[in-house]
Parts: sequence; C-alpha cells; structure tokens
Amino acid sequence: MRKVDTLIESRWILPIVPKGTVLHHHAIAVENGRIIDVLPAAEAQARYEAIERVELPNSIVMPGFVNLHAHAAMNLVRGLGADLPLMDWLTQKIWPAEGKLMSPDFVREGSYLAGLEMAAGGITTASDHYFFPEDAASGLREAGLRCAVAGIVIGFPSAWAKSDEEYLEKAEAFIEAHRNDAWVRPTIGPHAPYTVSDHSLEKCAEISDRFDVPIHMHVNETAVEVSESLRDHGMRPIERLKRLGLLNSKLVAVHSVHANASDIAAMAEAGASMCHCPCSNLKLASGFAPIAEFFKAGVNVGIGTDGAASNDKLDMLGETRLAAMLAKAVASDTTAAPVHDMLEAATLGGARALHWDDEIGSIEAGKFADVIALDLSGVECLPVQDPAAQLLYAADRTCVTHTWTAGRLIYSRGDSPAIASQCEKALKIARKWQNRI
Amino acid sequence: MRKVDTLIESRWILPIVPKGTVLHHHAIAVENGRIIDVLPAAEAQARYEAIERVELPNSIVMPGFVNLHAHAAMNLVRGLGADLPLMDWLTQKIWPAEGKLMSPDFVREGSYLAGLEMAAGGITTASDHYFFPEDAASGLREAGLRCAVAGIVIGFPSAWAKSDEEYLEKAEAFIEAHRNDAWVRPTIGPHAPYTVSDHSLEKCAEISDRFDVPIHMHVNETAVEVSESLRDHGMRPIERLKRLGLLNSKLVAVHSVHANASDIAAMAEAGASMCHCPCSNLKLASGFAPIAEFFKAGVNVGIGTDGAASNDKLDMLGETRLAAMLAKAVASDTTAAPVHDMLEAATLGGARALHWDDEIGSIEAGKFADVIALDLSGVECLPVQDPAAQLLYAADRTCVTHTWTAGRLIYSRGDSPAIASQCEKALKIARKWQNRI
Repeated sequence: MRKVDTLIESRWILPIVPKGTVLHHHAIAVENGRIIDVLPAAEAQARYEAIERVELPNSIVMPGFVNLHAHAAMNLVRGLGADLPLMDWLTQKIWPAEGKLMSPDFVREGSYLAGLEMAAGGITTASDHYFFPEDAASGLREAGLRCAVAGIVIGFPSAWAKSDEEYLEKAEAFIEAHRNDAWVRPTIGPHAPYTVSDHSLEKCAEISDRFDVPIHMHVNETAVEVSESLRDHGMRPIERLKRLGLLNSKLVAVHSVHANASDIAAMAEAGASMCHCPCSNLKLASGFAPIAEFFKAGVNVGIGTDGAASNDKLDMLGETRLAAMLAKAVASDTTAAPVHDMLEAATLGGARALHWDDEIGSIEAGKFADVIALDLSGVECLPVQDPAAQLLYAADRTCVTHTWTAGRLIYSRGDSPAIASQCEKALKIARKWQNRI
Repeated sequence: MRKVDTLIESRWILPIVPKGTVLHHHAIAVENGRIIDVLPAAEAQARYEAIERVELPNSIVMPGFVNLHAHAAMNLVRGLGADLPLMDWLTQKIWPAEGKLMSPDFVREGSYLAGLEMAAGGITTASDHYFFPEDAASGLREAGLRCAVAGIVIGFPSAWAKSDEEYLEKAEAFIEAHRNDAWVRPTIGPHAPYTVSDHSLEKCAEISDRFDVPIHMHVNETAVEVSESLRDHGMRPIERLKRLGLLNSKLVAVHSVHANASDIAAMAEAGASMCHCPCSNLKLASGFAPIAEFFKAGVNVGIGTDGAASNDKLDMLGETRLAAMLAKAVASDTTAAPVHDMLEAATLGGARALHWDDEIGSIEAGKFADVIALDLSGVECLPVQDPAAQLLYAADRTCVTHTWTAGRLIYSRGDSPAIASQCEKALKIARKWQNRI
C-alpha cells in the first residue's frame, strides 16, 4: 500500500483528457499537491492508503475552471449603474468610482472577494487584468486560487502608473518577480488596440518574447473599435497586431466579438487563442462572438467571466452554458458548441491559452490537483441521463461542493466555521468600500 | 393589536407595484393566505401581533415568479440527446421516450419533480402545457405551487386523446372542472399553428370565449413555421390566428421569436401577450426574440422556462437575467430591457397574461401571499449598490431562502427534515423513470 495525501472517489469523473470521456466509480490519488493516479475506485482502495478519503457517491469531479479573463477587483463596483448607456456607465459611474478608490488595498481586497466567489463556483485559476498586479495576485492567492496576472499597459495615467514608460517598466518588474512562480503566472497586458500606441504594443511584443509570457489583451470587442482602427490605422485590429509582432501563439484575444473570417483565419494560422466572454458581450451590447466559426477554424477557445461590473457574476459554469447555447442560436445549428467542446474550453482551453496546460486544465497524472466536485443529486439535476450534459446545462455553480487547488481544499459547501468567518470578512470588506463609493 | 398569521420583515421589499419601487425595512402582514398590509417594519410591529414572525435582515422579498410556459412533466426526460440536430433529437430521443412512458403517473410524478425545482427557485405559479392536465395539476399542487394548466389540442393521437374531437372534449371537461379553482386556473392549449387545423383552432377560440380562459399556444417559434404557414395558408401565423378568432387579449403567444413588425403591431392592437423563453430559443437554435420591440409596442411580456428537455433548468431568475442581457445585444442598446421592466415581466407580466393579476404577480394588499425571499448577503452578491439590479444580475436562484404560496411555506433553504424527505422521494421517482427510458 502506497501512502498518499488524498483519495477522491466519485460516481463520475470528467478528466477532459481524453476528450469526451466520463469515468464511472473512479478515484484520483493526490500527493504533494499533484495528481499521481486516476483509476477505478476499487483498485485505488487496494493500492493506496490515504490520509484523507473523500467519497462522493452522487457527484461529478472535474478539473477546476480556468477563468481566462477577469478584472477581479471590480467585484467592489458590481451593480453600479445598471442599464445605463455604455459611455454614461463608464464616465459617470465606473471610472469616477475607480478614480476615487484605486489603490493597492482596493485591488487586494476586491480581488480577495472575487477569489472567494470564484472558488465557491469551482474556478481554480483566474487570469486577471487590472491595476496593481501584485495586489491582485495577493488577493486571489489569499482566497486560495492559482492565477495568471497581467502587467497592464494602457495609454492613460492611473494611480498605478503615469506614462507608457512607467507601465512598461512596472509590467516588466512584475513579470521578472514571478518568472518561476507555480501560483502566479505573469502575463503582459496591453489593454486594447485602441488604448495602446504602436510603439508600446511593439514593446509588449518584445516583453512577451523575452520572458515567454502570454499577451492578455481585449481585441475586437466592439464594432466601433474595428471602424476606428480602419479609420486611424487603415487596417483591422488583428492585422495591426500582426504587423506589430503580437499575433502569435502567445496572444489571448479577449472578446473577439467582431472578428471576421480573415481575422479568424489569421488567428488560426498564428496559433493565437480567443477568450469568449458572452455575458459581458450581451450586457454591454457588444454583440455575438462567432464561436462556431472559431471552433471550425481550429482556434483554441477559452472562456472568461470578465469583471463583475459587466456581468455581474463570476460564474464559469453559467458562462460556459450560455456560450454553448448562444453558439447554437448564432450558428442556427443545434449541434454547434457541443458539451465536451465547451467543458474543454472552460478548463483546458484556458490552460492552453496561458501555456499552462502542462500543469493544469485536466485530470491527468502529473498535473496539479486543481480539482472540483459538483453534486448532481439535487432535484434540479434529476434524472442524470448524461452526466456531462447535466453538468453543463442543468447544474448551477452552487452544485459545487469542493474546490481544491494543489490538493488543498479552498472551498467546501455548507456551514463550516471557516466559510462563516470568510463570509463575515467578505461582508466587512464590501461594506467598507461601499461606504466610500 | 390585530392578530395575523405571518409578518415577513425584510431589509428590502420589491413589490413590483408601484413600478421601480424598493421599500426599505418594511413588512408584509399575511392573514388567511392573503397579503393584508405592506408597511414600515416598525409600524408593523406596533400594529400586528403575528403567530409567526420572519425576520430577514439581508434579504429582498418580492412576489413569486410566474413561469408562463412550462412542460413540467418533461423534467423526467431532461438531458436526453443533448446537442443532436433538432429533428433527430425529437424523433430519436424525446418522442420515443414520451411515446413509451406517457401516462397519468408519468405526468403527475414528473410535474411533482418540476414543482419541487420551481418552488426551490422562487416560482410560485407555473403555466403548464402538456398531456393529462389533471395529473399535471395534481403534481404541481403536491409541490405546493399555484398553476395554470392547459387543456391541450394537437393534431396527433397520444395516450391522452386520439382525435381532435377527443382533445377538444377533454379540454372542455378539464376547464369546466376548474372554473372556480383558486389554485388551478384552466387554459385552452392549441399546441401551435402548424399542428392544429383551422377548424380546431376556431373551436379553441370558441372555448376561450365561452369560459373566458387564456389561450396558451406556441406561436412564431421557428423560421420554418412562418415559411410553411405562408406556403400552406398564404399568410403568416399571427394573421391566420386573427382570421380564426384567436388574436385577442386572451392569447399568450409563446416564443414569438420570428414575429415581425406587423405581427407585433397586430398583437399590441389586440392586447395579446407574448411569452419569452430565451434559453429554449437558444438551445434549439430557434433564434432571438425581438423583446425590445415588443416592449416598445406596449405588448405585455411574460417569461417562461419551457420544458426541462430544451433548457434544461426551470430557473426563472436565470431566464429573466438572460432575457435582459440578450435584449441589449439584440437591440445594440445597453438601456434595453432594464431591471424593473424585466422583473415585472417575470412576475406581474405573467399574471397579466393569465388574466390573474387581480390575485397574483405583485405584493399588494388583497392579493394572495405568493411571496419569495432571496438572501443577498452571500459573497456573490456583495456589495449591494442597487438591490433590484443585484437580484437580477448577480443573484442565483439558490439565493432563494423562502417560497410561500397563499402564505404557506412550500420551500425553505437548508437541511430541514421536510426538504430531506422531499429530496429522497424525488430521487426515487427520477430513478424509477430513468430505468424505464
């Protein structure tokens, strides 16, 4: 009998790799934060002696969700100015609130709140894009999450940096500091084609190459972005990124709502990823991303919640469900965006985009034990004809009962003292910042 | 001090009438199943002596959701054949399963499961459309819900009826039996324009007039329905319904995805209602209903979940959130379908469509105490800048902590023995039918 830290036995396991597989009555053996074996539960009991054994007779266990696009700290401005016209919302509500409050504390505490929400909904990795990246990482880490955090570059002064040069310098320093960090993977974050100059975009490409880090960037979000790019640069955003050296396998083009056929072909050829944020695209009236076309072209697709201000949930399960349903209506094809493609996008797709799929995104021996369990025995999931379909289409994020990162339980459903004390802390933080808005 | 049965005191109350109102620290006094007063909590404590006092310091209380379109029994075939082409899904999965299983038991037990799911998500009234209406009503009632149930008319034989004449006869008998039923309101349910003959549609109009009951009908669901109507009848479905006497204030046109401007104008003029089922319309790739146009034209809008086979959740809060978000993207306008319009559609809009708004759909003295409470203190709802917006955009259906119909608590969150025994029963029913599929 080999000793292991944890044995997670479950009615169903959805390992994501091999694609489409659902294992019945299997177990995951975890040691030192990593998955060391996935095997039938009966064999696992014969082979491993576990310090902790978790038995889940009605659950489905899968890799944690990778939230490929978040502005975690924006949980503190959730619900501000609902239903306003987009520019009024930004200029009268969001930007003034951010301008007044932006600080390391705001970012750390907001990111901590977002991290708690994400952990409770089965998100184990968040790819964040905001100011004060060290504090964002610190808040997300405090909630137990693994994270990718962008060194932001944007052509406007903020409390974080005053000039392109300062943004670039600080981004570089942040990336340097986390080069070999298993928990915090740095990315370079040029905000968007319309907010960053050619010169700074070239610098971002250089930083991405030099440190071998992903480029986390809003691209093709709105129709106006495309028309202004044509007006100001004589070309579409993707073509401009190509000329400036950013269209490659490290690009994560967030939103990509207004990508046309040639954009999609160019992204496929370059091996770039797209990050789909359907809720935000609907709520901000940006439009409908052509997800079926991206899949057809072979582009790697991940899913992101975007920030709480434009969603307003950090709910990857709900986001992925919406993505699957929207894809069908947009393509006029009920077979578009099938269950296993979408669940892969929400996990391994995000990991691939971050070049982190050697460590996270699936349940395979050798990877980090970033694992979640969802209870499918509630009346809202009955009967279970097809556990993967039920998980995607019928389950709520509140079906998540366990969230582990590197084998450590960071969320468990129910009224434990740990959860109660977290909630109390969260309530205090929320009240403090709410009073300042 | 006047004695009352229940006093519900809450941080926020959203009465729906007057529109846009959010009451702070108010209470609802309930006696004999009806709301008798809505007033500041402090005054309520001075004026009423309650047998039961419910204090909700972090909650928002509102009227229960009216699910305007359900096929409740289909909870038993949830998850069958996900992602298949529409006709394969129907002909290879859904219809064979229904053909094999359809019976009073199937309908009663399936509707009971659906009723439990709906009650847990804050739905207090369901408008159902299926076979064996007496059994559907019985299952929904057993779960504690109020319901409107259709006497179905469809041009195909089933276990319920063999011919148009038999469907019409049985519908009439069902309507007759529930003429003055406070819990079960009968409707006449011609299935859809393409499945019911002119002659039977005229009979349905006559029944609706004679008994003064709503017409619950799928209309303009798919593009094919419209093109076939033009081919076979030389006119669009709405024009045909008008000629046959069904386009009036009693018509509830479910889906209305492919309604054009003249359909919408004709519906507005007739005072007909539309029932929006956005999840089903996406999942079946039917398309995007022009909700902003319906609102602009002044058509009464309600929201429905449709059956679990094409959704697969009976989640009115999620459905209404999606409806709000989709409307913005479809109209390219972030101000479309604002929070209070959508919450009204999900409650009073449904009640109006059923001509039941004198009794349900808002929190007003004299109406039934069909009331729900949602806890907004969870980390996923913090901070609460705007309770109505937070409810719609951030809360999950699992935030529902209490569901009352006529003042009786039919669902409460937590591990009560009553809930545990319900869940056990639900699991047994689901397993029984799953084994037969």
